[in-house]
Amino acid sequence: MSKFWSEAIQHLVPYVPGEQPKEQQIVKLNTNENPYPPSPLVMQTLQDFDLERLRLYPDPDARALKQALADYHGVTRDNVFVGNGSDEVLAHTFMAFFRQKAPLLMPNISYSFYDVYCNLYDIQYREVPLQADFSICLDDYSQTNGGIIFANPNAPTGRTLELDEIERLLARNTDSVVVVDEAYVDFGAQSAVALTQRYDNLLVVQTFSKSRSLAGLRIGFAIGHPDLIDGLERVKNSFNSYPLDMLAISAGVAAIKDEDYFRSTTDRIVATREWTCNELQALGFIVLPSCTNFVFAQHRYLEGAELMGYLRANGLLVRHFSRPLIDNHLRISIGTDTEMQQLIDTLTGHPDIIRLEA
Amino acid sequence: MSKFWSEAIQHLVPYVPGEQPKEQQIVKLNTNENPYPPSPLVMQTLQDFDLERLRLYPDPDARALKQALADYHGVTRDNVFVGNGSDEVLAHTFMAFFRQKAPLLMPNISYSFYDVYCNLYDIQYREVPLQADFSICLDDYSQTNGGIIFANPNAPTGRTLELDEIERLLARNTDSVVVVDEAYVDFGAQSAVALTQRYDNLLVVQTFSKSRSLAGLRIGFAIGHPDLIDGLERVKNSFNSYPLDMLAISAGVAAIKDEDYFRSTTDRIVATREWTCNELQALGFIVLPSCTNFVFAQHRYLEGAELMGYLRANGLLVRHFSRPLIDNHLRISIGTDTEMQQLIDTLTGHPDIIRLEA
Repeated sequence: MSKFWSEAIQHLVPYVPGEQPKEQQIVKLNTNENPYPPSPLVMQTLQDFDLERLRLYPDPDARALKQALADYHGVTRDNVFVGNGSDEVLAHTFMAFFRQKAPLLMPNISYSFYDVYCNLYDIQYREVPLQADFSICLDDYSQTNGGIIFANPNAPTGRTLELDEIERLLARNTDSVVVVDEAYVDFGAQSAVALTQRYDNLLVVQTFSKSRSLAGLRIGFAIGHPDLIDGLERVKNSFNSYPLDMLAISAGVAAIKDEDYFRSTTDRIVATREWTCNELQALGFIVLPSCTNFVFAQHRYLEGAELMGYLRANGLLVRHFSRPLIDNHLRISIGTDTEMQQLIDTLTGHPDIIRLEA
Repeated sequence: MSKFWSEAIQHLVPYVPGEQPKEQQIVKLNTNENPYPPSPLVMQTLQDFDLERLRLYPDPDARALKQALADYHGVTRDNVFVGNGSDEVLAHTFMAFFRQKAPLLMPNISYSFYDVYCNLYDIQYREVPLQADFSICLDDYSQTNGGIIFANPNAPTGRTLELDEIERLLARNTDSVVVVDEAYVDFGAQSAVALTQRYDNLLVVQTFSKSRSLAGLRIGFAIGHPDLIDGLERVKNSFNSYPLDMLAISAGVAAIKDEDYFRSTTDRIVATREWTCNELQALGFIVLPSCTNFVFAQHRYLEGAELMGYLRANGLLVRHFSRPLIDNHLRISIGTDTEMQQLIDTLTGHPDIIRLEA
């Protein structure tokens, strides 16, 4: 605390990201990174990049990347906003749309950055409880609001909403912005991007950090009606003219173009996830259905925090949240087949875990 | 305008950066980019980077870059904050320190992003007029304030304050944060970084975009007392956990280490600037003294806007600001010797410009 701080920042409770350990030999299953490297086309693009150009400012509007995303998603460039990771896109979204008299609605268990943004921008919010099975019930969002945000698939639960549920919400909630955070959508869920053409209050946010294997380059984007995009541009251009650097813009374009690699790596992760779910269940875990690159699981008898410590001591990092309702769960990112085999072998070696017969 | 926008963003007037023309053959003297490429060590570092690592998140704390900056500037790592360009660093600075009851003080002519940040974060500010010779008089800042910010050297004037003037201000202004924006300091001015060890309310902001030839990679930083750095970290960690990507962190470290290249390129730019000043004066321009990589000049008889148009028609882009007091001036970035010769030759060819005898 310092007498020089603005009063508001004295009350901030920053987001705490998953650990990035120094030890290279640790198996990182804690931050939902992709176990496969970026597309060969991305790597070639970066290797071929004329590095002398870095002396110049990037295109402040990142038109090449917006155009590639527009083409890919079947929209136009003025439907697309890009940012320095989807966290920056979300931050600008909260400032642009959610500072309203009525409270923002969000699930009580979701991406834990949402309430951090609310504190940052002094936004009132109301948490809507998940159902007992950890699913989101959008009927519960039929109340006065200054905006609605949820992740689909949700994090850290991994549970997924159907598109017709989202459309029913949009049909009855027309006076405030609805944001669907689709960070994990490419691992088996349906994207709401198509609905942005029919609902001018829908904003869909995605990231290159998971399915595109580019967490290290920081690229996120949003798709919505041009009026929403224009609102985001006003905030962005009042904050930082050039949020995406030249290398990120070029690599992002290349990542979008390599559809075959994208399909093959996401398919592999889905297959590994299904294997992992079955194995975890055989070891006594209750595993929520997942359409993401992670699983959310709790053991029938053993405590989550204890299991996390045990795995950490054995070279495997998973994520545990010390929050009510989910403090017995582990969020386990899907790694390579080898890494998940190591996870299952390590858990099998736990003195109190017994493999159940199928 | 949209009914979905938060009320505050309806009144935003975003910053407009200098044009990034599509035509590669244009001589860009409009955004103060460095005419020389990044250091060979930077390019080697990027070429050698293991691109497979981009699947992982960067170090959210960018420790390697902070340590390199701390070593270079003779401070410790907890004196250093880094961001996605100095614009992001400045944005967080305004939010962290300047939302006070008393108004922020800033020069009436300075970096035009400052009042944009004030609008973004609803900060009251008071503009303190420059003196008739476009210099800043820090004695004029002895008034009630919630913070003080100025650029040194100032932009777009290029005029420079001596360190003892800044120290006198700090000695009498101890209750609010003083930010010195040193984007251009490496071209001949004195940095106030050493003063941060004695004044706990001083924050110095610098960038890699000018003297380090890395505008395309977006790296900025601030140096100050750990309590100020901690305030910035709280805002940053409530906004975006990973503002600097892996390539920017690595390239930034390399840029700091290549001191010889840094000295040789900044020295060349200073020499070219002095030549350019003399030539412009011989063509009838009044040129302000500059310790930056640009000159700020007006012609004795000809209008700035007309001259900018003439240069543009002849393939040279310079910056003109349509603002009171300076709307007859041009801000001309210092390019290579060849580019500046082309500028002088083109101006010499203007029908109404006559070369004066020395």
